[in-house]
Amino acid sequence: MTEATLILVRHGQSQWNLENRFTGWWDVDLTDKGEAEAKAAGELMLAKGVLPTIAFTSLQTRAIRTLHIALQHAGRLWIPETKNWLLNERHYGGLTGLNKAETAEKHGEEQVQIWRRSFDVPPPVIEKGSQYDPGNDARYAGIDVPLTESLKDTIARVLPFYQAEIVPQLQKGETVIVSAHGNSLRALVKHLSNISDDEITGLEIPTGQPIVYPFKDGQPSGERAYLSEG
Amino acid sequence: MTEATLILVRHGQSQWNLENRFTGWWDVDLTDKGEAEAKAAGELMLAKGVLPTIAFTSLQTRAIRTLHIALQHAGRLWIPETKNWLLNERHYGGLTGLNKAETAEKHGEEQVQIWRRSFDVPPPVIEKGSQYDPGNDARYAGIDVPLTESLKDTIARVLPFYQAEIVPQLQKGETVIVSAHGNSLRALVKHLSNISDDEITGLEIPTGQPIVYPFKDGQPSGERAYLSEG
Repeated sequence: MTEATLILVRHGQSQWNLENRFTGWWDVDLTDKGEAEAKAAGELMLAKGVLPTIAFTSLQTRAIRTLHIALQHAGRLWIPETKNWLLNERHYGGLTGLNKAETAEKHGEEQVQIWRRSFDVPPPVIEKGSQYDPGNDARYAGIDVPLTESLKDTIARVLPFYQAEIVPQLQKGETVIVSAHGNSLRALVKHLSNISDDEITGLEIPTGQPIVYPFKDGQPSGERAYLSEG
Repeated sequence: MTEATLILVRHGQSQWNLENRFTGWWDVDLTDKGEAEAKAAGELMLAKGVLPTIAFTSLQTRAIRTLHIALQHAGRLWIPETKNWLLNERHYGGLTGLNKAETAEKHGEEQVQIWRRSFDVPPPVIEKGSQYDPGNDARYAGIDVPLTESLKDTIARVLPFYQAEIVPQLQKGETVIVSAHGNSLRALVKHLSNISDDEITGLEIPTGQPIVYPFKDGQPSGERAYLSEG
């Protein structure tokens, strides 16, 4: 029997979290508070002796920097690290860059809640050439970048990556850290904790709080727990 | 014909550079000045439009953090990154951790200069269990860690890694950044600029200054230049 550990960390506060704007694939950086959250996550892993041996993250600065700051403070900056767009945040389509209050004024609060909280209704597609279209960003060269996503769409790309790249590491007994985003982590938690389509949309994943799943032979062997409470 | 670029960066000032101690494989962090040097290197790459597409570094914090800070300020934190002990600093054996003045007092200035500046004379081996022995560090698990190295020994591990892992990226036309150490970079510069055994030991590679080689079809097509002067 091979035991392993999966650690999930949502990036610390970003500039647009602070400004309450739909971020999605836009590449905002962490705030000072976000950096402090990442540092605290690393110090917690070190204090608890839950030390990552391999890392996965998205192509987005806020998740990569959260990973690097956390690993630095856990003394683990030297572990192998894989970045992949399949762990990116949900693509918010035409809402990208909009302030949430302004969006509610324009489309109605009810419609915005549908886009934010429904499982399979994507926001309008982003307009090509719009200010916040990531389609031309060099990091996505050669990738068939989505124009918008529902949570269901996000799950449909996150899970195959998890199965192909992360599960084999858990089968080998690694302590895997995944530094990612509210919705790419919802995809994993939905799968691992067997949460329904209706429930998952309301599940909040707090920033900078390591969530730990124990694994045996590549399968979760217990429920998730906050490392801070372990 | 495939053109490519190789960027070499020596890590910014470390705490032990500042204290004038033999560092080798000991894992000291950057000073504030070292962080500022790394930031300036990233800003320079951005300003010059010399943007890395793939990164290599050692298993040592000072080189990894130099890479991360430089990439962050070049807007390239998202590129793939490989860390390998074969790019580590020269292992200073029993001198690791010693202050250079104290070492000169103990062994004589002449002997210290031989260890520092000869091509193929290694310092005494590090004592197993000594305070500064990296042999028990988790990052080197499964690796046949050296007990001391001459510059010749360092070259003998750096060049095969360069040929196997870095040259194929240059053949594909990538802009490769290598963030490493005084002696692991000497190994590369000796090879790429065809410098003699005698001369290479006196070649100083400045901290935080990107050095650029142009490549064609996996071979250097011109002499090295400081990016700041390009």
